[in-house]
Amino acid sequence: MEDHTQQEQVSLEVHKRIQDSFDRQGLMSHLGARIAHIGPGRVHIVLPSRPEVTQQHGYFHAGATSAIADSAGGYAAHTLFPEGTEVLTVEYKINLLAPAVGDRIEAVGTVLKPGRTLTVCQLEVFGVQNGQRKLVANGQQTLIRVTVER
Amino acid sequence: MEDHTQQEQVSLEVHKRIQDSFDRQGLMSHLGARIAHIGPGRVHIVLPSRPEVTQQHGYFHAGATSAIADSAGGYAAHTLFPEGTEVLTVEYKINLLAPAVGDRIEAVGTVLKPGRTLTVCQLEVFGVQNGQRKLVANGQQTLIRVTVER
Amino acid sequence: MEDHTQQEQVSLEVHKRIQDSFDRQGLMSHLGARIAHIGPGRVHIVLPSRPEVTQQHGYFHAGATSAIADSAGGYAAHTLFPEGTEVLTVEYKINLLAPAVGDRIEAVGTVLKPGRTLTVCQLEVFGVQNGQRKLVANGQQTLIRVTVER
Amino acid sequence: MEDHTQQEQVSLEVHKRIQDSFDRQGLMSHLGARIAHIGPGRVHIVLPSRPEVTQQHGYFHAGATSAIADSAGGYAAHTLFPEGTEVLTVEYKINLLAPAVGDRIEAVGTVLKPGRTLTVCQLEVFGVQNGQRKLVANGQQTLIRVTVER
Repeated sequence: MEDHTQQEQVSLEVHKRIQDSFDRQGLMSHLGARIAHIGPGRVHIVLPSRPEVTQQHGYFHAGATSAIADSAGGYAAHTLFPEGTEVLTVEYKINLLAPAVGDRIEAVGTVLKPGRTLTVCQLEVFGVQNGQRKLVANGQQTLIRVTVER
Repeated sequence: MEDHTQQEQVSLEVHKRIQDSFDRQGLMSHLGARIAHIGPGRVHIVLPSRPEVTQQHGYFHAGATSAIADSAGGYAAHTLFPEGTEVLTVEYKINLLAPAVGDRIEAVGTVLKPGRTLTVCQLEVFGVQNGQRKLVANGQQTLIRVTVER
Repeated sequence: MEDHTQQEQVSLEVHKRIQDSFDRQGLMSHLGARIAHIGPGRVHIVLPSRPEVTQQHGYFHAGATSAIADSAGGYAAHTLFPEGTEVLTVEYKINLLAPAVGDRIEAVGTVLKPGRTLTVCQLEVFGVQNGQRKLVANGQQTLIRVTVER
Repeated sequence: MEDHTQQEQVSLEVHKRIQDSFDRQGLMSHLGARIAHIGPGRVHIVLPSRPEVTQQHGYFHAGATSAIADSAGGYAAHTLFPEGTEVLTVEYKINLLAPAVGDRIEAVGTVLKPGRTLTVCQLEVFGVQNGQRKLVANGQQTLIRVTVER
């Protein structure tokens, strides 16, 4: 397992802003997902294995894999945005490289190209079993920054 | 709202095979999704609105939208396959065109190009409010047919 | 073959703007491509078969197929934009459904969702042989509108 | 500029097989592209700047950028395949991150996940100006291995 303690951290303000937004995503808590790391331009989201997130063979459902990948990328972009802005997914593409099995899956969203309007992220999802990580999905995502209307 | 009663139907055997597979997808029942139509090369999946499937603004989460779109495409391909075969998603790409709001969303997977090994589907997701349908997501998916090992 | 004469036409001003822009694309004339139709939200581009646009088996190269698909989508979006604006491709995804063979290939770009900032297009490419059309590629494209700086 | 001399090389047989296939691609020579490196699971293709590969603003056309990216990924997969097999592009998705300017552009195709049937590659394209490299496009590609019929 990666040691996140030595990774670069975001400010407490950004950390709180992202955790608060995540906590308002009904789907994430319904699936049982949680944020595992928030760094500048990089966010990890973990989803433990349970019957409620599977497809017909008992693997993680591609929809669950994609859901945490999409959120990880969105929040990775969000770490680089000023307060009072939000991020929306424009589109993403994901390849499901191998059956998603493990104690849990971990999605890593990483900003590849930040921008004032559009940001592009890389999405990776790993199956984690007994501390071993295996890449099970890989994708690319386009996001747009929007100003929050109050 | 579409009248599915006049649409072409699959055989009872195919209908049962797909409904049984769907019922084994823990994620679909956990989200509250259900199959609304099974035709040859076309499957509709409906997801009613509830807090458990939202993102931070109360809209349907892109992960929920994608999950039912992915399943709709997979089962649309599955209707064209012989017994003893399964379908796996190779990859998909989805554009989120508008905020996914409504009483429910409905994903429509349609086979665009069937094949012995690879099948390509179109994915559409509509927000449905008071019987009005609006396209909220559009995508394209590649699937692979695999023989079930027993 | 489609009869374009009965299709809806754009204004002469829009037609001229798009044809002029197309004529400045060195790649399109180098490949031998030409615009076959300009309608509101829809543009067709034709590429005749010649050795200079093939891959190693003598089929149209995926790069040539994609190039005219990308341009067709871009100009389809452009037909809906006001003067003094330009369009840039943000990203696209394309499935190569069948070997691209024929006397020529024809790309059809169609606006699926217009927008002030982002526009999403559907991309289709047909192989045309003796007047028979066959879908050889299908894709989806995201474009951004930019104001021309003078 | 990267020093390819210290990178891992493929066998002479694989090198020849790929160079021969590339030389049969009419489009690549028509554009003026050439292979710059062939390593196991990685191929670089370079395209010098010239008016014949531009779009309307004088930048490299997205179609040219995509064409060499697609070929680089295809040949990267090909380096891992046994003799008597060929590779076809199933689909790819590419984000155009920045205007593609420079003396030349260089596409790097890298195998992300090899497979008996399907192989997934990462695609990167750099603009190179006075030896400075800048990422101008990033993509992801699915390929299928086929046996050559003789």
